[in-house]
Amino acid sequence: MDKKLEALLARLGEINDLESAAALLSWDQETYMPPGGGPARARQLATLGRLAHEKRTDPALGKMLEELRPYEESLPYDSDEASLIRVARRDYERAIKVLPSFMARFYRHTAESYMVWVKARPANDYRSVQPYLEKTLDLSRELADFFPGYEHIADPLIDYADEGMKASTVREVFAELRTQLVPLVRAIASQPVADDAFLHQHYPEAEQLAFGLEAVKTLGYEFQRGRQDKTAHPFATKFSLGDVRITTRVKENDLSEALFGTVHEAGHAMYEQGIRMDLEATPLAHGTSSGVHESQSRLWENLVGRSRSFWRFFYPKLQAAFPNQLGAVSFDAFYRAINKVQQSLIRTDADEVTYNLHVMLRFDLELALLEGRLAVRELPEAWRGRYQADLGIVSPDDRDGVLQDVHWYAGTIGGAFQGYTLGNILGAQFFEAAARAHPSIPSEIERGEFDTLRGWLKENIYQHGRKFTANELVQRITGGPLSIQPYIRYLRSKYGELYSL
Amino acid sequence: MDKKLEALLARLGEINDLESAAALLSWDQETYMPPGGGPARARQLATLGRLAHEKRTDPALGKMLEELRPYEESLPYDSDEASLIRVARRDYERAIKVLPSFMARFYRHTAESYMVWVKARPANDYRSVQPYLEKTLDLSRELADFFPGYEHIADPLIDYADEGMKASTVREVFAELRTQLVPLVRAIASQPVADDAFLHQHYPEAEQLAFGLEAVKTLGYEFQRGRQDKTAHPFATKFSLGDVRITTRVKENDLSEALFGTVHEAGHAMYEQGIRMDLEATPLAHGTSSGVHESQSRLWENLVGRSRSFWRFFYPKLQAAFPNQLGAVSFDAFYRAINKVQQSLIRTDADEVTYNLHVMLRFDLELALLEGRLAVRELPEAWRGRYQADLGIVSPDDRDGVLQDVHWYAGTIGGAFQGYTLGNILGAQFFEAAARAHPSIPSEIERGEFDTLRGWLKENIYQHGRKFTANELVQRITGGPLSIQPYIRYLRSKYGELYSL
Repeated sequence: MDKKLEALLARLGEINDLESAAALLSWDQETYMPPGGGPARARQLATLGRLAHEKRTDPALGKMLEELRPYEESLPYDSDEASLIRVARRDYERAIKVLPSFMARFYRHTAESYMVWVKARPANDYRSVQPYLEKTLDLSRELADFFPGYEHIADPLIDYADEGMKASTVREVFAELRTQLVPLVRAIASQPVADDAFLHQHYPEAEQLAFGLEAVKTLGYEFQRGRQDKTAHPFATKFSLGDVRITTRVKENDLSEALFGTVHEAGHAMYEQGIRMDLEATPLAHGTSSGVHESQSRLWENLVGRSRSFWRFFYPKLQAAFPNQLGAVSFDAFYRAINKVQQSLIRTDADEVTYNLHVMLRFDLELALLEGRLAVRELPEAWRGRYQADLGIVSPDDRDGVLQDVHWYAGTIGGAFQGYTLGNILGAQFFEAAARAHPSIPSEIERGEFDTLRGWLKENIYQHGRKFTANELVQRITGGPLSIQPYIRYLRSKYGELYSL
Repeated sequence: MDKKLEALLARLGEINDLESAAALLSWDQETYMPPGGGPARARQLATLGRLAHEKRTDPALGKMLEELRPYEESLPYDSDEASLIRVARRDYERAIKVLPSFMARFYRHTAESYMVWVKARPANDYRSVQPYLEKTLDLSRELADFFPGYEHIADPLIDYADEGMKASTVREVFAELRTQLVPLVRAIASQPVADDAFLHQHYPEAEQLAFGLEAVKTLGYEFQRGRQDKTAHPFATKFSLGDVRITTRVKENDLSEALFGTVHEAGHAMYEQGIRMDLEATPLAHGTSSGVHESQSRLWENLVGRSRSFWRFFYPKLQAAFPNQLGAVSFDAFYRAINKVQQSLIRTDADEVTYNLHVMLRFDLELALLEGRLAVRELPEAWRGRYQADLGIVSPDDRDGVLQDVHWYAGTIGGAFQGYTLGNILGAQFFEAAARAHPSIPSEIERGEFDTLRGWLKENIYQHGRKFTANELVQRITGGPLSIQPYIRYLRSKYGELYSL
C-alpha cells in the first residue's frame, strides 16, 4: 500500500508543481511583467493549464485512486491518508467531466479577457470588454453543462468555489440575511454619516506600506514565508506552503485602502501559511473553499482589524506614523470613521454592513445572466438599476460600476461572489467560537497579542487545509450548521452601540 | 506538409512554454522569492525540467522530424522552415541520449547546490559546498558519458554551450591567444597603474540605477519588452521575445560594478530582443551559442561601453548625475580609469586584457577536474596556484577565490567558461565587420546614436536566433573562420595608445 500511496503522491505532486508554476506566472503578470510579455504569457498559462488538466484527468490516476479505496475505507475519515485519497478522488471525478480542449480555450480566453479589462476599466470602456464577457458567459454555461443533472445552471460553478453549496441554498441564506440586514441599514441610514474626511488627507505611500507591513507582521503573517508587492487589484497567492504572497494597492488620499486591504490579504495568507507543512504539495494543502477563505480575510480585516481592541493597540502607532494627519484626531473619531456605514459604489471599499448588499446583487446578476434573463449588453443598465434599488446610489460611469471587480473578466460568471458573504457569516461563527473558547482574546488584542486567536484558528481551521469541507468545519467547530445568527449578533452589537440604535 | 509542420510547432511550443515557465521560476528565486520558498522551488524546477525533457525526447517528436526530412531537404538550408526542422532535430538527437531520471536528479541537485553556494560565498565556506561540487563533478561526467565516442570528456559539455567546439580546438585557440596576450599584459604591467580611486567614492544606489537604465535605453534595450531587477549575481533571462529581462548588482563604493554590468546584461538582452518575432516559441528563438551570446554582451560592454566615442557622449551626463564625485575629473582621467589594466582577483571586474587569463585558468581547471588530475577538495589550492602563476595575485579567502562564480555551483563542471573568451574573440570579429560596412559607426556613437550598429548586428546576427551556428555566422559575416586577429588588433591599438607601448 505504501508503494501505491507513494505513486499517488508523486502524481499529485507533479500536478501541484504545474499549478504552482502557473500561479507564479500569474503573479508576475500582475506585478512585474513588461507589457510586451502579455501575449506569450497568455499562451504559457494556457499550456500549463492544459498540461495540469491532462495530468488531473489521467485514467492511470483514476485507477490508482480506485485501487486505494479499500485502504482509504480501513482508515479513520479524518486521517491524513484517507482525507488525501478522498479529496484527490473528488478532484479527479470533477476534472474528468471537463474536456481538456475546453480548459485550454477557457484559460486562453480568461487571460486575454483580463488583459482587455486592465485597459478597459481606467478607460471606462465597457464596450471593449463586452464581447469578451459574452464569450465568458458562453464558456461558463459550457463548463456547467459538463455536469449534467444540476438543479440550477449555476450550481456546478458555485460548487467549484464553495463545495456543497447550491444556488437554492445560497439564495435561501441570502434571503434570510437580507431580511435582517435591510432594517439595520435603514436604521443606520437615518442617522448622520460619520466624518471620515481626515482619512482622505495626503498619506505618503512609503509610510502607508511600512505601517501595513508592521501591522500584518504583528498579526502573525510570516515574511520568511511571504512578501508583499503592489498590483492594480490586491490578492493573495501561494507557490508553496513556504511562499505565500500578498499584494496591495495604495491610494495616497485614502488611508483605508492599503491598510484594510493589506490586513484582508494577510488574512488569506495566514490561512495558507497555517496549513500543516507535511501536507505540502498535496491536494490538501489549500484553503477549503471560497467562503472559508473569505471568512479568514474578513475576520482579520473586520472582526479584528476594525475593532476597538485592535486600535487600542495600533492607533497610537498610526498617530506616530502620521502625526500631522492624525495627531489631533481622537480615538473615538477614528474608530467611527473606519466603521462609517454608507451606501456606496465600490464593493471592496464598502463597510461591513452594506458590503453584503454589493455581494448579493452581483450574485443575483450572475444567476440572471446564466438563466438568460439578462443579456451581457444589458448588464451595465441592470447593474445601475440594482444599485439604485438596493443601495440608493448609482455610479456615473462603468469604471466604478460594472467594471469595478476583476472576477467576471478573469474567470467564470457564476460562483464568483457568494463566497464573500458566506465568508462574513462563517467568520462571525468562527470568531464567536474562538472567543467562547478563549474569553481573553479581546483583551489580548488590546495588547497587540494575537497568538491565542491565531493559534485557535490554526488548530481548528488552518492546519487542516482541504481535509474538511466548509460544512464539515462549521459542524466540528460549532456543533451545528451554517448560521447567520452570530453575524447578525455581531453587527447589531457593534453598530447598535456606534449608532445608539 | 502544413499539417505536419503545424503539429511539430505545437509540440515545440509546449516545450518552449515549459522552459519559459522554468526560467521565470529561476528568475523569481533570485529576485523576490522569500527564503521559505526554497525547498519547494527546487522541486518545482525539477518537475518542470523533467516534463520538458519528457517532451523533448518523446519518440513521437522524433517520428515527426523524420517524416519532415524530405520536406526539409526540398528547402534552402537557411529558410526558416528548414532551419527549424534541422535545429529541432539536432536538439532531439542530443536530448534522447540522456535518461530522464538523470535530468531530474541533475536539476534537483543544481538547484540545491545553488542554494548552498548563496550562503557559502558570503560566509567564505568552501567546505559546505565541497560535497555538492563533488556530486556536480560526478553528474557532469555522467552527463558526458551519455555521449560516447568523445575525444575528451569535456567535449559533450562544451558542445552543449558552444556547438561545434571541442576541448582540443578551444585549447588550441586559447594557446594562440595566450602567446599574444601574455607579452601585452607584461608590457602594460611594467607601466604605472591608472588611478581609479574616484570610481570608489560613494555613489548612491538610486542614481546609479537611474543612470544605467538611461544608458541601456539609449543603446536600444527596450523596456516595453524588458525590465531590470537587483540580484546577487547579475544575469539576463527571457520568458518570451516580448519579455527579456536583466538584473544588476549595485555597489555604492564602486561605480563600475552596476554601470558596466548593466550594459553587459543589456547586450545579452538586445541579442534576444533582436530575434525575429515570427520565430517566437520555436527552438530558433534563442541566441545561438554561449560564445556568440557573450560576444554581444562583451561587445556592448567593452568595444562600445569602454570606448572613447561612447564616453564623449555619456561622460557629461555622468558628471551631471554625480557632480560632486566627478565634476573635477577630466575626460582622459576617467577614460584611463575605466580601462585600467591590473592583475586582479575577480573575473567579472577584470579589465579586457587580463579577463581572458581568468577564463583560461577556469577552463584548464575544469578539464583537470574532469580528467581526474585534480580532486574537488584540492580545487581552492589549485585555484590559488593558477592565480599566482597567471596573474601574480592570490585571494586571501575563497569568497573572492574559488567561490566567486556561480557557474560550477549551479550547472556542470565543463563547458561553463570557454564561451567568455570565445565571445571576446567573436565580438571583435563582428565589430570589425560592422565598422567596415559602416565607417560612420564610431562618429555616430560619439553622438549617442546606436541604430546603425544595432541595426547591423540585428541584420547579421540577432534576427537569425539559432538558425546558424557560431561557426556558420562567422563564415557568413567575415568570409572566414574564427580568428583571434581582430581581437588582438583591437587590444594592441587601444592599449598601445593608452600605455604608449
